[in-house]
Amino acid sequence: MAGNSFGHLFKITTFGESHGKAIGVIIDGCPPNIDIDEDFIQSELDKRKPGQSKITTQRKESDVAQILSGVFEGKSTGTPIAVLIPNEDQRSKDYSHIADKYRPSHADYTYQQKYGIRDYRGGGRSSARETAARVAAGAIAKLYLKSQGIEIFAHVSAVGTLEAPNLDTTNLSALLDIRESNIARCADPATANEMIALIDSIRKAGDTIGGKISTVVRGVPVGLGEPVFDKLHADLGKAMLSINAVHGFEYGSGFSGSEMQGSEHNDIFVKEEEQVRTRTNFSGGIQGGISNGMDIMFRTAFKPVATIMRDQETLNEAGDSTTISGKGRHDPCVVSRAVIIVEAMTALVLADHLLRFKAYKD
Amino acid sequence: MAGNSFGHLFKITTFGESHGKAIGVIIDGCPPNIDIDEDFIQSELDKRKPGQSKITTQRKESDVAQILSGVFEGKSTGTPIAVLIPNEDQRSKDYSHIADKYRPSHADYTYQQKYGIRDYRGGGRSSARETAARVAAGAIAKLYLKSQGIEIFAHVSAVGTLEAPNLDTTNLSALLDIRESNIARCADPATANEMIALIDSIRKAGDTIGGKISTVVRGVPVGLGEPVFDKLHADLGKAMLSINAVHGFEYGSGFSGSEMQGSEHNDIFVKEEEQVRTRTNFSGGIQGGISNGMDIMFRTAFKPVATIMRDQETLNEAGDSTTISGKGRHDPCVVSRAVIIVEAMTALVLADHLLRFKAYKD
Amino acid sequence: MAGNSFGHLFKITTFGESHGKAIGVIIDGCPPNIDIDEDFIQSELDKRKPGQSKITTQRKESDVAQILSGVFEGKSTGTPIAVLIPNEDQRSKDYSHIADKYRPSHADYTYQQKYGIRDYRGGGRSSARETAARVAAGAIAKLYLKSQGIEIFAHVSAVGTLEAPNLDTTNLSALLDIRESNIARCADPATANEMIALIDSIRKAGDTIGGKISTVVRGVPVGLGEPVFDKLHADLGKAMLSINAVHGFEYGSGFSGSEMQGSEHNDIFVKEEEQVRTRTNFSGGIQGGISNGMDIMFRTAFKPVATIMRDQETLNEAGDSTTISGKGRHDPCVVSRAVIIVEAMTALVLADHLLRFKAYKD
Amino acid sequence: MAGNSFGHLFKITTFGESHGKAIGVIIDGCPPNIDIDEDFIQSELDKRKPGQSKITTQRKESDVAQILSGVFEGKSTGTPIAVLIPNEDQRSKDYSHIADKYRPSHADYTYQQKYGIRDYRGGGRSSARETAARVAAGAIAKLYLKSQGIEIFAHVSAVGTLEAPNLDTTNLSALLDIRESNIARCADPATANEMIALIDSIRKAGDTIGGKISTVVRGVPVGLGEPVFDKLHADLGKAMLSINAVHGFEYGSGFSGSEMQGSEHNDIFVKEEEQVRTRTNFSGGIQGGISNGMDIMFRTAFKPVATIMRDQETLNEAGDSTTISGKGRHDPCVVSRAVIIVEAMTALVLADHLLRFKAYKD
Repeated sequence: MAGNSFGHLFKITTFGESHGKAIGVIIDGCPPNIDIDEDFIQSELDKRKPGQSKITTQRKESDVAQILSGVFEGKSTGTPIAVLIPNEDQRSKDYSHIADKYRPSHADYTYQQKYGIRDYRGGGRSSARETAARVAAGAIAKLYLKSQGIEIFAHVSAVGTLEAPNLDTTNLSALLDIRESNIARCADPATANEMIALIDSIRKAGDTIGGKISTVVRGVPVGLGEPVFDKLHADLGKAMLSINAVHGFEYGSGFSGSEMQGSEHNDIFVKEEEQVRTRTNFSGGIQGGISNGMDIMFRTAFKPVATIMRDQETLNEAGDSTTISGKGRHDPCVVSRAVIIVEAMTALVLADHLLRFKAYKD
Repeated sequence: MAGNSFGHLFKITTFGESHGKAIGVIIDGCPPNIDIDEDFIQSELDKRKPGQSKITTQRKESDVAQILSGVFEGKSTGTPIAVLIPNEDQRSKDYSHIADKYRPSHADYTYQQKYGIRDYRGGGRSSARETAARVAAGAIAKLYLKSQGIEIFAHVSAVGTLEAPNLDTTNLSALLDIRESNIARCADPATANEMIALIDSIRKAGDTIGGKISTVVRGVPVGLGEPVFDKLHADLGKAMLSINAVHGFEYGSGFSGSEMQGSEHNDIFVKEEEQVRTRTNFSGGIQGGISNGMDIMFRTAFKPVATIMRDQETLNEAGDSTTISGKGRHDPCVVSRAVIIVEAMTALVLADHLLRFKAYKD
Repeated sequence: MAGNSFGHLFKITTFGESHGKAIGVIIDGCPPNIDIDEDFIQSELDKRKPGQSKITTQRKESDVAQILSGVFEGKSTGTPIAVLIPNEDQRSKDYSHIADKYRPSHADYTYQQKYGIRDYRGGGRSSARETAARVAAGAIAKLYLKSQGIEIFAHVSAVGTLEAPNLDTTNLSALLDIRESNIARCADPATANEMIALIDSIRKAGDTIGGKISTVVRGVPVGLGEPVFDKLHADLGKAMLSINAVHGFEYGSGFSGSEMQGSEHNDIFVKEEEQVRTRTNFSGGIQGGISNGMDIMFRTAFKPVATIMRDQETLNEAGDSTTISGKGRHDPCVVSRAVIIVEAMTALVLADHLLRFKAYKD
Repeated sequence: MAGNSFGHLFKITTFGESHGKAIGVIIDGCPPNIDIDEDFIQSELDKRKPGQSKITTQRKESDVAQILSGVFEGKSTGTPIAVLIPNEDQRSKDYSHIADKYRPSHADYTYQQKYGIRDYRGGGRSSARETAARVAAGAIAKLYLKSQGIEIFAHVSAVGTLEAPNLDTTNLSALLDIRESNIARCADPATANEMIALIDSIRKAGDTIGGKISTVVRGVPVGLGEPVFDKLHADLGKAMLSINAVHGFEYGSGFSGSEMQGSEHNDIFVKEEEQVRTRTNFSGGIQGGISNGMDIMFRTAFKPVATIMRDQETLNEAGDSTTISGKGRHDPCVVSRAVIIVEAMTALVLADHLLRFKAYKD
């Protein structure tokens, strides 16, 4: 109820502050006998970790995951899998400059008002550091989904107003290779170069910029999702909106679909190679809240990072006006690291709905 | 888990198919001693009901709500409030023309595959008729919120590419009056007239069109929402995406915020009349997932209605190609009726989070 | 959270007061394509209804169930099944004699303090009438379990200090026939006669008496139940303790097992006809919280009904001493009607755990 | 859903196997600004730990708790509190003698069948070691409850057929001192001595014995518990039955209440010192599922420990008959250590229901 759990059958619970001893996650409900490839989990964490390129924060954390339980001789046992990620540098350097100030567009003010207390070091629980725990859990969900023939691909489709062209998504693993070949994590190489240049210039200006991530999920059986409140896209939407800095979510035709007419928007059913498919996919692979076997497609919008390297007006806890100055090493644009968080949350939603689906299949 | 419940402390469970005996809802967790104004509940249902104007479906249903339990001498008792809405015309006219055909962009195919059985009459459970139950429950949530000083206002801000200008939202109740003075339910009278004309022309062409709804919530105390997965905007997003035909959700700066830079996007804290406020509200009233006392603002995108009055190709259950012809009376554009559903779901999310908030306040 | 729902995958939500318009239940998560035999549901309700024999309350209610949704052409569709049981006599006769008095060992005082309001007519929501909704839902759960080869049998094993001998449970359906052949619902005919005489004498004395119900569940696959908090017997125990008047629950060896030594209590594994079985069944069919394939066996203790036909001291809402006099027609002993409630709650727990089990089976 | 979480608003999730790297717990929903006294948490763990006396297992584990998150400068912050208890001796000594054998009345067989894999070392997740995590969480719940004036007392009221006399419970803290003055943890000194002698003789015989624990909770406000499924005693019962080896639960008059008549069982309301009280307390402090302000009283029955120091027949995984020999150091009677687990689970139920109660209080 305090909201640190996500999912029902494949359920995770995360804990940990930015500058506490450790962060971590318990995965409860991972099916037994799944190969738990620790190298894969670590490689996923490495894609999220800070300091990985010149367009991310230069803060160095190695984010090494330790599995404490639920795995025996390399396989999941069906019992809770606890993953611990120690915080390497938990000394509370000097946070006195922000201890009693509310950073603009951060969670300092709301946390203080809600709880009457907060761990101000590095944003505490509101720090994006919490998402490392999600990535570890998402990696395990991906291993499960992979065993079921489901693959997930996300990439940076926009930075600011710079948008990548629509991709040919026939070969997702080829796109993944392209994405991982550039630090922007955009699967269109030409746009990737422009994005890198743009982010670099924003960084030099001490500013930050927003962006968008597009996701494709392939291999989902027909029937995942519940028809009323737990529609598959509603749960995907909640998952995305729970990621720090996300301000928007759309699936299939999305916002632009609201400008269309039914006669152009309807996806006509056809039979291709003995498979029921739709000629177009404005439905984004989900109809009536339930997967229809087509690719699931959605897009997530991230606001610019709130910490900028400039002086800003604000209030302190006493309610007096003051000035806050950006310090430290922060991301000029979060989307290239967030790609892996988007994939992780997508995997968690799908693993949960796949188990819910199986409960009713004989 | 089958997903017909929504909320935790203020929780609803809906039931009923379009052509069964009745639809309805149980509201579990409404605080006791709230005045349950049945006229208000009915007036909310009347705003959603079909046949209310020339730009909605001409199907006539009076949607009369009966309260079966949980109310004693006009007040809630703290026990479950069951609301029943009998289906007036439950005879299964002639649905033989669609009984074994998959209507494009409807849920026929996914339901059949998921369950191996479906009530094909009027879409069964996937019918938007289910939302009448949400409106009844939302009306009760509104009565609770009103007693706590919280007000909700939504209106149609776009039909197709026709967008209303930004409103001055100083006086929400005045806007509500304007909205209710026109059948488009747009609070800008000039745009409303254009919308009506546009929808009417779409209807005459046998087609349908999408649109957008904008929502403002005022009077929410600082502190609602949980910091990680159950962020207030994540729960609002899930609520919106659970409404039939919704393909997108954004709050605060939304998708356009992803094109901005941090220096322009950050909301500067200021003190006005002894209140902490922010100079801008790109955060949409929510920071770190928690309400900050500013107006909560979000926008919801609806795709065009799938049932059009034209012949369309499709498949039947046997997998053979066939043609389906639009029949009956359907909405050319759903947003003017959906405004009240959006408000209802908003009220449900806020009532739930308000109770969660109170659990931790002494 | 307000606690009117039970179960997770096979979930029910009940509503309704004793003297409101109706009581009822929504069953969410019943698998599709189950034959919903309405006659069976009604026959279960008839076993619980008041006025069925001289040893139950003489109040007459026919408790006719109406299915409002979720069933199409005699089969479940996978969508919520709503069952309505109208209250026949909802006129609030004369309850003025108890309207402001706290009946001893009833819920009047706690409801008034908790909610600040209560529907005093017939106990409102605390009335055992609520259990009719459970019986209707339990009947549907039984139909599902029957399709899976699981059968449930309960009977009255004690009234006051009068205990039935241990039964030979080889043939549960024969025992069921015996049980239904007498109004005490005890499967030992000789004891049944003694019970009837005892209850009748208690009734004539204007008093009430407690009793015990024993339950056997057969055909449960190995593997139902979760190892830590949601142990199968923990969920059965909660289910039983949620029934009005239940003050105790034990499974397998139960309380007497706490007086035994390990060397006599351990159930030795043996192989019989290619089946793993245990030589004794002190474990009651559950080991480590998980079904082991043996019969599940437990016992439930009911306190005497609180309403007696005698004057009793008590307080009124103002806190003054007063006298309350038993009126109306009440049960002298509740167990012969409660047998069917025990079976219903047992069925609900097993249906839920069976679905949870299936989610993880390929 | 996999059942490693307990509670709703004050919710815990435990993880860890007996011979893995660590066990632990996340407490989600602890109110902020509670003093988190780490010495108290450790002292509670010390009361549960093995090797504490001659009548417990001689296995030595120090069970040192580390708080990883959710506490800042000695106070809870409202964010998840993670507690880690490293396993000191995680080397898998020689478990080859039981690796493929099903120990009688243990969970080996059911785990293997349910999951198709199990960590056989020390019972893995089914080990009572898991309860150390509950004790750590329960200690934090106790700190919260103490701040609200609620105190919990449990003691060993029976070992085998040896029962302590009824206690005068006027002064719970004095009883606690007596309980802690003897290794049986019985608050009646004379009985304690007899219990110690009995357990010691059982231990020397290589056998084990069951027992009972009685609990009293004082200071609970009127109104905790929900009226239908989440009755306060139903949640307490589930909590108790989720503890390893518990086979029975009763509250108030319990099983013996089922042998009584209403005229003797009814608790008469009286006013004492301006407080509404009941003259007797057969209701065990709970009426209609809701606390009535009187002491909450219940009793829990534990079966004898399954591991005995004798040869027993059993089956191996192949289904062949074999013999298993008790080895290692095990508890001859679990109740003196289980007292603290009972208190912990009681605290967790009450903390959860207290928050649920507060959500509806203005």
